[in-house]
Amino acid sequence: MKSILNQADLDSFSRFYRANLINCLTGTKPAMLIGTTNVNGATNLALFNNIFHVGADPALIGYVQRPVDQSGDTYRNIINTKEFSINWANKEILEQAHQTSARYNDDISEFEVCGLTPEYLEGCKAPYVKECHINILLELVETIPVSINNTIIVIGKVKHILIPNALIKEDGNIDVNADNALSIVGLEQYYTTKFEQKMDYAKVVI
Amino acid sequence: MKSILNQADLDSFSRFYRANLINCLTGTKPAMLIGTTNVNGATNLALFNNIFHVGADPALIGYVQRPVDQSGDTYRNIINTKEFSINWANKEILEQAHQTSARYNDDISEFEVCGLTPEYLEGCKAPYVKECHINILLELVETIPVSINNTIIVIGKVKHILIPNALIKEDGNIDVNADNALSIVGLEQYYTTKFEQKMDYAKVVI
Repeated sequence: MKSILNQADLDSFSRFYRANLINCLTGTKPAMLIGTTNVNGATNLALFNNIFHVGADPALIGYVQRPVDQSGDTYRNIINTKEFSINWANKEILEQAHQTSARYNDDISEFEVCGLTPEYLEGCKAPYVKECHINILLELVETIPVSINNTIIVIGKVKHILIPNALIKEDGNIDVNADNALSIVGLEQYYTTKFEQKMDYAKVVI
Repeated sequence: MKSILNQADLDSFSRFYRANLINCLTGTKPAMLIGTTNVNGATNLALFNNIFHVGADPALIGYVQRPVDQSGDTYRNIINTKEFSINWANKEILEQAHQTSARYNDDISEFEVCGLTPEYLEGCKAPYVKECHINILLELVETIPVSINNTIIVIGKVKHILIPNALIKEDGNIDVNADNALSIVGLEQYYTTKFEQKMDYAKVVI
């Protein structure tokens, strides 16, 4: 039995139920930690589930930043330092990764209180997460306001990728199963992946 | 052994290897089909792997549209009709869903050649996919140019959600496992999900 839910139905749900349902509509989302520093070098780490591919050449990754008055340090740090890291959360650090989403005061480093280790690549200000197998260091290239809900799309250009050789397949694809990479569905449901099939480039067949 | 890949390394890879690697950097992405019609009512269907959550209230979903001169009908149809559907690809239709990514001419409907069935909700121009368990009907609310690579972020507002009652959990979360929802890693690797853990809202603990 299929329900048809309209705006009136969405409005009738509790705030909690509606937030879960709507956050689930985009299915399986990557669970990734964004690492930054403020201008004094104090570190910050936060879990994001709305990171997306923007382009392959140049290599660009974006995320949706909530309205800035509701946000923590991540956006301010990115604007000030022009750098950030994206780190793949994995099953071994599920609880630590999730805990970074708590609303810690600005003077608290989530690295420290959540038990994750900041490391640095020479020449980069943004810390990456030692416990994540895959780390991406980016420089800020564009911030784009979304007028309809006052969010901001933040786009970074990939400068460095840290990745174990064993996680890259022959054809350049990343082995997410071997990484135990975590996905998020909705806000708080964590999943790993089960490989189904690799397809070939689809050709026109009529 | 962890590699550090820089721009020079990325440039040294074959186009194919680099495209796979960079498209994998954003991890597990939802595999979803976008359905549209042109102004004459001819249907179009295409697989997207760069769909993302923009906001819960109002309920907004976005996707990244490649530069328009490279694109097929989806964007043109959305601009002309102001409507589109997002349909969750599932394991049972993996091959049909993937096949919609082939570059069919504009006068071909991917529904027909790929063996998927268009259905309509009264009052909506955009077709949804019968074989997908979860269908979302949206109206166009914003298109935002990304200057760095000439892509366009297309944002729709959710008008209707078609979903089997059995796929909604008590708390409003969607059961992606029961749906056999497909994810894409890179361009052509398909995955289903394995449930790991549901966490509570993270509270500050120091």
